[in-house]
Amino acid sequence: MTTTNTTATASRAPRQLHLNAFLMATGHHVAGWRHPDVPRDAALDFAQYKRFAQTAERAAFDAVFLADSVGIRSADTSAALHRTARVSNFEPLTLLSALAAATERIGLIATVSTTYNEPYHVARKFASLDHLSGGRAGWNVVTSSSESEAHNFNRDRHPDHALRYERAREFVGVVAGLWDSWEDDAFVQDAAAGRYFDPDRLHVLDHRGTHFQVRGPLNVARAPQGHPVIVQAGASEPGQALAAQTAEVVFTAQQSLSGARAFYAGIKDRLAQYGRHPDELKILPGVFAVVGESGAEAEEKLQQLQELIHPEVGVQLLSQVIGGFDLSGYPVDGPLPRGIPEPNGPKSRFRLVTSLGYDEGLTIRQLYQRIGTARGHWSIHGTASQVADQLQEWFEGGAADGFNLMPPTLPGGLDDFVRLVVPELRRRGLFRTAYAGRTLREHLGLRRPPNRHALARESGNARAA
Amino acid sequence: MTTTNTTATASRAPRQLHLNAFLMATGHHVAGWRHPDVPRDAALDFAQYKRFAQTAERAAFDAVFLADSVGIRSADTSAALHRTARVSNFEPLTLLSALAAATERIGLIATVSTTYNEPYHVARKFASLDHLSGGRAGWNVVTSSSESEAHNFNRDRHPDHALRYERAREFVGVVAGLWDSWEDDAFVQDAAAGRYFDPDRLHVLDHRGTHFQVRGPLNVARAPQGHPVIVQAGASEPGQALAAQTAEVVFTAQQSLSGARAFYAGIKDRLAQYGRHPDELKILPGVFAVVGESGAEAEEKLQQLQELIHPEVGVQLLSQVIGGFDLSGYPVDGPLPRGIPEPNGPKSRFRLVTSLGYDEGLTIRQLYQRIGTARGHWSIHGTASQVADQLQEWFEGGAADGFNLMPPTLPGGLDDFVRLVVPELRRRGLFRTAYAGRTLREHLGLRRPPNRHALARESGNARAA
Repeated sequence: MTTTNTTATASRAPRQLHLNAFLMATGHHVAGWRHPDVPRDAALDFAQYKRFAQTAERAAFDAVFLADSVGIRSADTSAALHRTARVSNFEPLTLLSALAAATERIGLIATVSTTYNEPYHVARKFASLDHLSGGRAGWNVVTSSSESEAHNFNRDRHPDHALRYERAREFVGVVAGLWDSWEDDAFVQDAAAGRYFDPDRLHVLDHRGTHFQVRGPLNVARAPQGHPVIVQAGASEPGQALAAQTAEVVFTAQQSLSGARAFYAGIKDRLAQYGRHPDELKILPGVFAVVGESGAEAEEKLQQLQELIHPEVGVQLLSQVIGGFDLSGYPVDGPLPRGIPEPNGPKSRFRLVTSLGYDEGLTIRQLYQRIGTARGHWSIHGTASQVADQLQEWFEGGAADGFNLMPPTLPGGLDDFVRLVVPELRRRGLFRTAYAGRTLREHLGLRRPPNRHALARESGNARAA
Repeated sequence: MTTTNTTATASRAPRQLHLNAFLMATGHHVAGWRHPDVPRDAALDFAQYKRFAQTAERAAFDAVFLADSVGIRSADTSAALHRTARVSNFEPLTLLSALAAATERIGLIATVSTTYNEPYHVARKFASLDHLSGGRAGWNVVTSSSESEAHNFNRDRHPDHALRYERAREFVGVVAGLWDSWEDDAFVQDAAAGRYFDPDRLHVLDHRGTHFQVRGPLNVARAPQGHPVIVQAGASEPGQALAAQTAEVVFTAQQSLSGARAFYAGIKDRLAQYGRHPDELKILPGVFAVVGESGAEAEEKLQQLQELIHPEVGVQLLSQVIGGFDLSGYPVDGPLPRGIPEPNGPKSRFRLVTSLGYDEGLTIRQLYQRIGTARGHWSIHGTASQVADQLQEWFEGGAADGFNLMPPTLPGGLDDFVRLVVPELRRRGLFRTAYAGRTLREHLGLRRPPNRHALARESGNARAA
């Protein structure tokens, strides 16, 4: 209840959707790097990323978004690895820092795992990025779930799911505490008196928990945004609980309007448990959108990409989805073999795929094309108007506060969206024509969190008065 | 012997000195922040750092250099802390990444400790910075020696010196191994064949050592420089041994020509043990230089800064140097009290200071002014010609391959040096007039290290032929 007032200003404005540009050097389609319009050496070409970010900024996107992994998945087990482009990339925080210097207004969200990192480093780097960028940093909090990452950090196996989330929760708490080490007005810089800061405005955290012992204080002044924006993407039960407690943006993979609606309502409903208002958390499903001047052109563009999926890559992708069952011996234009055992892990995608194969008769190639586009995210294609219709339906239908746009190729896929769909969304009043604010929080309509120590003192003063 | 040839080209050019600009927001003088020419809020103002780096780049400096600490020293023990400016700064790798986007040619050297970090993260971030900057990254390898840092990373005490260096040596080895994960020509990007990289050019490190178990491979292609440049600053015996084995640049604090000569000869002599040529390691002492149009102006500038040292800060600095003996009860314009016990730690500076106090009669204020300028580094002042004379004497006298310039204030101290001293050094043929190369290695005259796996294969082929 106490937090409702602080977001009232944002709520009074007409509701518009939020758009992040999820950047991946050669685009999100698994075969994007083979597309003739995708530049060679794009993976480590800063000039390309600068172009992507500046394009998104010209279109007044809320933020650019970067995924991450501290390792190469199945680096020595996958025979198809050398046919994929996701093995060599910039480290997100160094890349976003460089992009901070090449942009003025757009938000900068980096994924950093809590599993093989230390809260002091993470608190510090995001605070530093927030200062470098004038208040545009966001942290996508994840846990590391791949054994390949564990192997790079002194472990044979990654910790189990519950333990990872327990550590993540404590990690986020420590980071938030460190971000409040200094009050906003701590640095008085009184040269005449020789007083650089006010010692009463400096706070030692002295955290002693289960996973961490962190004394602090942070050696970076309070960030322009107070705290950089907290983003999360965990879909599991502990992931959703952590999101409801701490996240301000949730990035989610949803395939259908009904599923997205249920997820949206579920997360928003949980917020009250933590004394939070629904507006304090924005839900942005990923969307893989292929846009054409005509429906036929969009269809053609998608088909061109699908045909670029090398069968070894496609079969490998499909095998992963069905619990690791090895499909490499089967003809790609033949049917899905019978008798694939149901996996111990997540079963929903297994059932979806096997149903498409057995009941609708899709071949192995058709199946991997169906799932190869967007790694489980919502995949759409069409004209600007058709794409805008679908985004609007989700946005107005209680399924999304906006979207994390996953361009199939770069720069083409982003250019198309900006040139064709953004003007259409604006015509409908669904997206801003220019930035109103300076910080990522302002773009997202999120309040700037007060410093806990300043708040405590003010409450104390109020009670005393 | 085998490595001598690779540096022959660099050796044939007339020997010129190397200059790094050691950037610290308000300058290196402890009272710099109180100087009227130092901008307010400089500590976290990216525009200021951009200006510093661009000034150094216009003058064709080899690199900018950033120190680091993962904590605030004596955050809750020092009563004078709030009178100093070193408590809140950018994190170096995020800052250098942003500077990479704002500069074209200058090298970018960041300090990162091996004590509370993981080699995979460090290898990755420097490789990423090297790609972002087109081959301009350097890593200053240090160990963390302050208890305040230990407290931020789950420890009550920092590990002892020998253990820290043992860990550092293994750490550097793992990082170098990860940097060779990919051969230079690994990414064939054959779109037609669907072959993104050549699997024979990818190498799994699989390191299993005392401190680390790191499988690899790194998820960043080989860096433009092969390996970012390795810098070190350890003055202790294990520090010097590690430098001779792995460093390409040594940053050192030296107070006298004779001391600097002995250090220089000692390190260069050790190189042969590791099969290295003296030219493969550059020794750059720190120099704190106050430059004036006249000798009197330089003297006045220095005196102005000295008088800005708050007595509490000065007394605290002096107390630290003499082993922690508390001087706060003594009059600052009185003599150093008798009977200060010799510390268990390093004794050379203790003896220097007590001798100045007891034998030359310097007051407490005069003593802290003497040591407050440059934290133990070589401190000089004078006209451009006088400063150039001294640099030349060290450079030609076997004491230095160049210098890590520590401007007393910023931007003024750097501007003065660039405007007055750099032209004088050029007139003498001691410093370049423009960059000849593109990478930090090229500026420093250091060879690009070959990939170990490519080298092994080529040696194998040569033996087989």
